Amino acid sequence: MKKFLAQIRIMPLKELLDPQGKAVANNISNLDILGVEDVRIGKFIELVLEAESKSAAEKKVEKACKKLLANLIMESYEFELSEIGD
Amino acid sequence: MKKFLAQIRIMPLKELLDPQGKAVANNISNLDILGVEDVRIGKFIELVLEAESKSAAEKKVEKACKKLLANLIMESYEFELSEIGD
Repeated sequence: MKKFLAQIRIMPLKELLDPQGKAVANNISNLDILGVEDVRIGKFIELVLEAESKSAAEKKVEKACKKLLANLIMESYEFELSEIGD
Repeated sequence: MKKFLAQIRIMPLKELLDPQGKAVANNISNLDILGVEDVRIGKFIELVLEAESKSAAEKKVEKACKKLLANLIMESYEFELSEIGD
């Protein structure tokens, strides 16, 4: 068994409003931070897993994203997978 | 003014428990996803901003992370900054 690190980004779909991001974008100037045009807020998930091969690990991460981590009605996901030492 | 995209990762500090991540790690096997050893859940934030230079943009993003986006008592942040077209 090999060990892998999956780094997953889950973001609200571009077509949808991101109310948390909008709230930050609209109020960040109160902190004297000027010039911010757009903010989108999603999740970043690091997952350490064991699998027989990179493609087996990829399948597991896909399944975890689809079934548990992302809400595909409102969110999209992307991930990178890298092998790590024990 | 140039336009930049900042991609910010905010993660719970390694020394601290991440209860949301632990909950996922402990129960993901119920979905028939086996071999997951560790899960850590943080935030991923994309910020589009205007600034005069890359170093000015960097300062703004640092300030936004410290003052608003990350809770430095419990979280650490990292970001990458890239120039984008209009």
